[in-house]
Amino acid sequence: MATQHPEIGQVIEKLKTLLKERCSTSDAVREQHGKDESWHFPIAPDVVCFARSTEEVSEIMKICAAHKVPVIPFGAGTSLEGHLNAVHGGVSIDLNEMNEILRVSPEDLDCTVQPGVRRKQLNEYLRDTGLFFPIDPGADASIGGMASTRASGTNAVRYGTMRENILSLKVVLPDGRIISTGHRAKKSAAGYDLTKLYIGSEGTLGIITEITLRLYGIPEAISAATVSFPDIEGAIQSVILTIQSGIPVARIELLDDVQVDAINKYSGLDLPVQPTLFLEFHGSEAYVREQAEQVSNICSEFGAEGFKWTMQAEERTMLWEARHNAAYAAINLRAGAQIWATDVCVPISRLADCILETKKDLADSFLIAPLVGHVGDGNFHLSFVIKKENPEELKEAERLNARLIKRALAMDGTCTGEHGVGLGKIKYMDMEHGEAVSVMAALKAALDPDNIMNPGKIIPDRAAE
Amino acid sequence: MATQHPEIGQVIEKLKTLLKERCSTSDAVREQHGKDESWHFPIAPDVVCFARSTEEVSEIMKICAAHKVPVIPFGAGTSLEGHLNAVHGGVSIDLNEMNEILRVSPEDLDCTVQPGVRRKQLNEYLRDTGLFFPIDPGADASIGGMASTRASGTNAVRYGTMRENILSLKVVLPDGRIISTGHRAKKSAAGYDLTKLYIGSEGTLGIITEITLRLYGIPEAISAATVSFPDIEGAIQSVILTIQSGIPVARIELLDDVQVDAINKYSGLDLPVQPTLFLEFHGSEAYVREQAEQVSNICSEFGAEGFKWTMQAEERTMLWEARHNAAYAAINLRAGAQIWATDVCVPISRLADCILETKKDLADSFLIAPLVGHVGDGNFHLSFVIKKENPEELKEAERLNARLIKRALAMDGTCTGEHGVGLGKIKYMDMEHGEAVSVMAALKAALDPDNIMNPGKIIPDRAAE
Repeated sequence: MATQHPEIGQVIEKLKTLLKERCSTSDAVREQHGKDESWHFPIAPDVVCFARSTEEVSEIMKICAAHKVPVIPFGAGTSLEGHLNAVHGGVSIDLNEMNEILRVSPEDLDCTVQPGVRRKQLNEYLRDTGLFFPIDPGADASIGGMASTRASGTNAVRYGTMRENILSLKVVLPDGRIISTGHRAKKSAAGYDLTKLYIGSEGTLGIITEITLRLYGIPEAISAATVSFPDIEGAIQSVILTIQSGIPVARIELLDDVQVDAINKYSGLDLPVQPTLFLEFHGSEAYVREQAEQVSNICSEFGAEGFKWTMQAEERTMLWEARHNAAYAAINLRAGAQIWATDVCVPISRLADCILETKKDLADSFLIAPLVGHVGDGNFHLSFVIKKENPEELKEAERLNARLIKRALAMDGTCTGEHGVGLGKIKYMDMEHGEAVSVMAALKAALDPDNIMNPGKIIPDRAAE
Repeated sequence: MATQHPEIGQVIEKLKTLLKERCSTSDAVREQHGKDESWHFPIAPDVVCFARSTEEVSEIMKICAAHKVPVIPFGAGTSLEGHLNAVHGGVSIDLNEMNEILRVSPEDLDCTVQPGVRRKQLNEYLRDTGLFFPIDPGADASIGGMASTRASGTNAVRYGTMRENILSLKVVLPDGRIISTGHRAKKSAAGYDLTKLYIGSEGTLGIITEITLRLYGIPEAISAATVSFPDIEGAIQSVILTIQSGIPVARIELLDDVQVDAINKYSGLDLPVQPTLFLEFHGSEAYVREQAEQVSNICSEFGAEGFKWTMQAEERTMLWEARHNAAYAAINLRAGAQIWATDVCVPISRLADCILETKKDLADSFLIAPLVGHVGDGNFHLSFVIKKENPEELKEAERLNARLIKRALAMDGTCTGEHGVGLGKIKYMDMEHGEAVSVMAALKAALDPDNIMNPGKIIPDRAAE
C-alpha cells in the first residue's frame, strides 16, 4: 500500500457527500481497482468512485485537484503493464457505469460512445446497422481504456490502431474543466492534434469521457486460414511478401511451436506443432478467394504445407477464440503459474532477426514463453509463464524482457507496440526516446502541474516530480 | 514591416559569421520569404538563412533563442493562410537546400527524407522501386511543409493525410536541442504521440528536419473517370453511397459548374458545364474495372449521365493536371485578379446542405468563387476571385468566408480541413475549439516559453503572449 496522502480523509468525505453509495472504501472494491491483468503486484487506491456522467467526473476531479490527490481512471481492468496500480494511492474513478452508445451515424460511418462501453457490446449493438468497429485487442476491453492505451490487436494490419480510428474525444482536464479535442469532420488542419495527444496517454493527462469512433461496413465475405511452416523464417518471409504485394489481409498472426502446442491442449485443436500463421480475409466472395489463393502461393514459396482456408463462420470463430485464448493456454502449460506478457514492435524487415534471436534466448533459459505476434505490423508478444512469488523466475523474466527490448530498440523499433508503458516499461522510456522524454515531461507538467493524473506512469518520476 | 526586435542586429551578425553567404538580408530574398500563395499581404523577415543540416538548424535556433528572436521555417512557400508572413519580424530559415532522400526501404514500405524534398521529386526518385508516396495537395510542396500543415489533398480519401503517413520526425526544439519523435516501427504505445503533435503545428513548436514516411506499392492498374450531374445534390449523394459501400476510390473530387467552366477555358477541356465528379481507381485491372462499374451504377441512380472512364495514362494525366490547375483557372476568370482560397470540412452527411447553402450565399454575392472539393472526406474549397487592393471585395470575401466557417462549425465540422490555421483562420480557433484552445496555448507555452517559433500563428495572441 502506498503512503496515504495527508488530505485523503477530507477528499473521501467530500466524495461520499457527492456520490453517496457510489463512493466505496471497502477493501474488496479497492483491491479489485488496484490491479490489471499483468504480473505487477497490486496496489489498491484509497477510495473508488463510480461515475455516471462527464459532469460527475468533472466534480470528482475538482475535489481531487483542490487537495492535490492522485486520480486513476478505471475501465475494464484488462491492461497489461500495471497501468491501474495506485502507486501513490488516491482515487480510482470507475467508468463502467458510463456505458452508453450515444449516437451512431451510418451515413458518416462513425459513432460516439461513453468510455465504459466494451468492444463486444459495441459490435453487438452495431450488428443491425451492417457496420462494425474493427479494433480487437483480444480482451473485451472498454473503449475508454483502449483509447487511453492506444490499443490495437489482430485487425490493425488492415484497419489501423485506436490512433487511426478515433475522430475526437471529450476529456475532463486535471482541474475539472471539460474539453472536446475535435469534431466529427474526417480530417482537420485546425491547430494541435489534441485527440492524438490523449490517445495513449494512459490517464496521465486527463480522463476521457466520450469517444467518437470510425466504423466500417461489415465485409460481404470473410474467410479464415491456417498454414504451418517448417521454420519461423519462412513464415515471416511469407508475411513480408504478402504485405509488400499489397494484399489487404485483415489479420495475419504468427504463433510459434510452443504457442501452437499450448492452444492445441487448451482449445482442443490439432494443428501441427510448428510455426503457424492464422489469417483472415475481408471482401467480396471472389476477392476473398483471390486473396487466399495469392497468400497460399506465397506461403508455398517459403516451404509451407497444408494451407487450409474456410468461409464457415463456425470454424473461423473457433480459430480466433483459440487465438484470443493464447494467454490462458500459456498459463495452462504449468499448474499454478501466471503470465508476464510483454510486447515489442520492429520494422518488418528486422522481424525475422528479432524473433530468431529471441527464440535463441528462450532456448537458453529455464523459463517457457510462448510467442504470438501481429506480424503484419512487426509486432509480437512473449508470455513468460512464471510463478511470480519465485524471485528467481521474476529476475529471469526481467532479464529476458530487457534483452528483448534492447534488441527491438537497436532495430529501430519500440519497447511496446500496443500494451503501453504503465509501470512495466517506464524504465525503458529514456533508452527509447532520449531527449524526447523531457518534451513528454514538459507536456505532462503543463497540463497536470500537480502531477495528480495517474502519477508514476509513462513519465519517469525524476522528470515529473 | 513588423517592428524590429531590439537584438536583431546582434543576431544577424552571429548568423553571418555562422553561415557566410547563406545568410541574406537582401530585400529581394527577404520579400520572397515573407509570403506564401495566399491573399495575405506579405510581411518580410529581417533576415533569411539557408540551412544545410539538422545541426546547422540547431545552431541557428540557439542563436535566436539566446536573443529571443522569432524564427519561421520556410519550405516551398506554397501554403495558403499566411503561414510564412513574419508578423513579428525575425529569422526565416529556408530548408530547400536540405533536399536529400536519405533512405528508402522497400521491405518496410517506408523512407526518410529531409524537409526540403518536394513531393514530385520524391515520387520520381521512387519510381524504379515500384513504390509511391500518395499525399498530393496539388502544389509541388515540400515534405517538411506538408508535415507542418498536416496537408492532404485528392488521394486522402484512400490513403489518409500526412497525419496517417508519417512514422516519425526529427525536430529541432526552440532551444536548439534535437529530438526524434519516434522510430520506424509501424505502431507504438510507448508514451505521448509527439509525432502527431508536431504534424500540423505549423512551425510553432520547433523545426522539422527529417521525416520518415509510409510508402505504397504503385497499383497494377489505375483508371480515371468523369461524370456530370444535373444538380450538386445528386453528385454528393453518389459520393456518400460510394463511400458507404466501401468502394476504395483513390480520388473522388467535386467541381461545381463555375469551376468546370473555368477549367474548360484554362485547360482546354470540353466538359459539360455542370456539377462534375473526377474519380480515380487503383487496383488490379479487373478490380479497377469492377470499381468503375459500381460507381457508374451509383451515379446513374442519382441522375448522372455520361460516365466516362479511361485506363489511358495520357488522358488521366490531362484530367488531373486540369484539376490541379483549378486555382489558376479560377484566377484566369478575371484579368488582374488574385485568389483567396479557403476550405472547410464537415461530416459527409452534412456535405450537401453545407455546399447548397454556400452556393446560395454565392448566388447572392457580387463575387465569383469556384468550388472544388475532396468530397469523399467531406472537405471542400472556395476560391474567391478578388482584387485584393479593393477593400469592398476583401470585405465581401471575409463576410462569405465567415459565414462558410460558422456553417461548417454548426454542422460539427472544422474551419479548415487541410489548409491550416496560419493567419487566416486564427480568429476562428476559439469558436471551433472553445476551452481546448487554452490547452493548445499551454502546450505552446511549455515547449516554446519565449514564443519565438512562428509567433502569431495557430494560437490567438492573447493566450500565447
